[in-house]
Amino acid sequence: MLNTAEIGRRVGKADYKRELPQLRTRLLEAQRALREAGLATLVIIEGMDGSGRAEIANRLHEWLDPRGIQTHIFWDPSDEERERPYFWRFWRALPGAGEMAIFLGGWYRDILTDGVHKELEPETLEARLAPVLHTEGLLAADRTLILKFWYHLPRKEQEARLAHEHRTPDDRWPSAAAALKGRKLLKTWAERILRRTDTADAPWFIIEAADTRYRDLATGYTLLEAMEKRLKEHQTHRERRERPLPPPEPALPKAESARVTVLDRVDLGAKLSDARYEKRLAQLRDQLRQQLWRAHGAKLTTHLVFEGWDAAGKGGAIQRLAGCMDARLYRVIPYGAPSSHELEHHYLWRFWRQIPRAGRVAVFDRSWYGRVLVERVEGLCTPAEWQRAYHEINQFEAQLAAHNGLVLKFWLHISPEEQLRRFEERQNTPWKQYKITPEDWRNREKRPLYEQAVNEMVLRTDSPEAPWHLIPTEDKRYGRIRILETVCEALKARLD
Amino acid sequence: MLNTAEIGRRVGKADYKRELPQLRTRLLEAQRALREAGLATLVIIEGMDGSGRAEIANRLHEWLDPRGIQTHIFWDPSDEERERPYFWRFWRALPGAGEMAIFLGGWYRDILTDGVHKELEPETLEARLAPVLHTEGLLAADRTLILKFWYHLPRKEQEARLAHEHRTPDDRWPSAAAALKGRKLLKTWAERILRRTDTADAPWFIIEAADTRYRDLATGYTLLEAMEKRLKEHQTHRERRERPLPPPEPALPKAESARVTVLDRVDLGAKLSDARYEKRLAQLRDQLRQQLWRAHGAKLTTHLVFEGWDAAGKGGAIQRLAGCMDARLYRVIPYGAPSSHELEHHYLWRFWRQIPRAGRVAVFDRSWYGRVLVERVEGLCTPAEWQRAYHEINQFEAQLAAHNGLVLKFWLHISPEEQLRRFEERQNTPWKQYKITPEDWRNREKRPLYEQAVNEMVLRTDSPEAPWHLIPTEDKRYGRIRILETVCEALKARLD
Repeated sequence: MLNTAEIGRRVGKADYKRELPQLRTRLLEAQRALREAGLATLVIIEGMDGSGRAEIANRLHEWLDPRGIQTHIFWDPSDEERERPYFWRFWRALPGAGEMAIFLGGWYRDILTDGVHKELEPETLEARLAPVLHTEGLLAADRTLILKFWYHLPRKEQEARLAHEHRTPDDRWPSAAAALKGRKLLKTWAERILRRTDTADAPWFIIEAADTRYRDLATGYTLLEAMEKRLKEHQTHRERRERPLPPPEPALPKAESARVTVLDRVDLGAKLSDARYEKRLAQLRDQLRQQLWRAHGAKLTTHLVFEGWDAAGKGGAIQRLAGCMDARLYRVIPYGAPSSHELEHHYLWRFWRQIPRAGRVAVFDRSWYGRVLVERVEGLCTPAEWQRAYHEINQFEAQLAAHNGLVLKFWLHISPEEQLRRFEERQNTPWKQYKITPEDWRNREKRPLYEQAVNEMVLRTDSPEAPWHLIPTEDKRYGRIRILETVCEALKARLD
Repeated sequence: MLNTAEIGRRVGKADYKRELPQLRTRLLEAQRALREAGLATLVIIEGMDGSGRAEIANRLHEWLDPRGIQTHIFWDPSDEERERPYFWRFWRALPGAGEMAIFLGGWYRDILTDGVHKELEPETLEARLAPVLHTEGLLAADRTLILKFWYHLPRKEQEARLAHEHRTPDDRWPSAAAALKGRKLLKTWAERILRRTDTADAPWFIIEAADTRYRDLATGYTLLEAMEKRLKEHQTHRERRERPLPPPEPALPKAESARVTVLDRVDLGAKLSDARYEKRLAQLRDQLRQQLWRAHGAKLTTHLVFEGWDAAGKGGAIQRLAGCMDARLYRVIPYGAPSSHELEHHYLWRFWRQIPRAGRVAVFDRSWYGRVLVERVEGLCTPAEWQRAYHEINQFEAQLAAHNGLVLKFWLHISPEEQLRRFEERQNTPWKQYKITPEDWRNREKRPLYEQAVNEMVLRTDSPEAPWHLIPTEDKRYGRIRILETVCEALKARLD
């Protein structure tokens, strides 16, 4: 595969000088058009030591408008990065709408280095590549243009380059001699990884780097063509108002018994007496505080997700839960409609940003599940978008869990009758009126649609590492205690 | 001072139970009203070891809506924090409009600890407190309500508490015995610091912590009263549309010779030939790259600020400058009108956020000087706001410079005639038309106002640690080279 990149392509000085001005003008034009269209571009640059990866980034900065482009190096992670899942450092560097980011190495760097230096087992390699493929797919589906370049150098040329280059943190080898000696090993691993990750969404381009004029122009043309194609595609879609056909949905028999949902199995009759409530609350507060300090010591990060019907008591439950935690350790993060800035990124971006440091607790007051609940039911995203969200969410939570994370998800459930009662109470109590809006009434009418959405959400995203807990809050006290018990039990099970 | 907080105030259980519900309801109400009014609240909690500082934060979380409040502990700084000026970690934790933040210790913690353990000299203490006073003043002026609490314990009570408390990172002493031994020293330093920082903008409240019911209720009432007062004041101001009278402005004689500005002293005739330009550019590129890698090694952070007339060639100059830097080391950060999210914070917040890590370069394409230029001239902020901005900006830049930072500021200057020529050229060249907007023409008409604003800005914010460079770009090539030379020289002077 890589040997085919030793065929000696080159560009003479005169040709370079002739071709460059037009290439630059078109690149600038394409960059501006992409900015206006709000499309993001991600360029990943990898290659052999000495192939000039940083030079190429510089060239692109020079050719394009540097205000719309940023190069990211992922050298040693900071401690803030180490305390979050591995991909956090990449998410924080992703380009927003209309921007371009260049990743030097990016998520390939560590895998390649570990391949070469630690000889990863095939299954380990596969496991390491899974989130890479997933993330690229997810970004591409969200209209990010992804291009990956591998720069190849023939042996002789590499030898010559390394002889008069000084070492930088980009290098994979301690010395030029080591790099040459490890050259074959790197090629083997690069071929393996490139082949496995060369997808239509995020293709690899292998470019001969021996002649720097050829290298730079080939990079520029490849990038330009991809940008222009993306723009054309964007325009065509807009003109035809075309949307990809959504994937198949579950279709149900008409009989009502066939339309039962997981929510129908929740015991809404569960109750707790006042006295019992106060006693349990005090017990659980002590337990939870103790467990959370243990979790802090063990650097176990807790992610608590709250969803539920309007007026199901989400706010009150979170407040009681918060009252049982140390203010130094937790944060409640409420989510409403995304801001314009948040809309410039993938919908998961605003949740990735808020992942807490190791050993802390994040309480998500509404969450990424908005994608498959309100956004689905209200048509705020396309069917294709919410349908792929289940998989995206599962992968996201798997990454949280794998990084020493405890992920618990709560759906607070009440009957439509109880909801009506609470709505009316809110409307009739002056100091509760602010809690009820016309939107709540509209949502209420759509309950059957939401019930199906909840059912599908629970079916498709309930997992051992991020389980759903359906909590009846018909009796608020019972619900609050069940939540506290669930959190305490899960922490205990994990920490013991 | 602190001994007066040993008078034995207390609240009985029955009184506590009677008073609490109403206090909580009013606190919640005030919190909601502040959120709606978009006013931020900052609570700083400090005190003796054992006085229950964290407990109080917990109590406030419990009493208020935890969704609108966040407690920040400032234990060991992360490496990302250490690489920026000391106050960066506080700026990133500041509450936005409508939010409340509790700082445990906050910017007082290290000063107190160093006072006690390192016996700071009086001048050192004063120097350490200067940015504290400055930052509190700046936030208070920007409508942040600031309350600072000091919790005091009599000796006996402290002894009892510390006996059965286990140590946390909050503690200033390695053991309970040491804390008791150091008690007097801490009191001395606390008194000194409290007295020096007890301002009308950000007052200290000294609260007896021996009786926890008294401690918590007194905190709650003090906070409540401050919130309610702030709300009332906010309403009154809105109703009367009152604005504080701005501070005095410089007033000029009428003679035109008296209205000369610093810009009139710039030599617009400076020129550079094509050949000379290309040669110097190549030389300076090599120099700059080399200096910036040296700066990276020395962890010297470079902040380059670009302001200038429309069409003065800011974009082109930045592009040439960027072409001379390694893409791995710099970032261009363009600033337009602030987003709604940015408007929820102090105007300096969006610049603090973008301070690069140690050894990197930030190129600010427009900057915090917008406050005293466009915002001043267009009336986008009040006169009082832009008038105090000079001092705020000077302090901000002093912090950047003091943290091993090089700060250089460029004003790109052209004559009104040249500007007109460029505007017309843009209008008549199809692929340049996007660069010219009706706003540019409007700004042009206001040139005399902008000239006075520039003059005052340069006069008041030019300093040895953050100098202004007025660059004539009537001849673009000359201007670009001058900028490069200035950056190279400043780096060299600093690094040699």
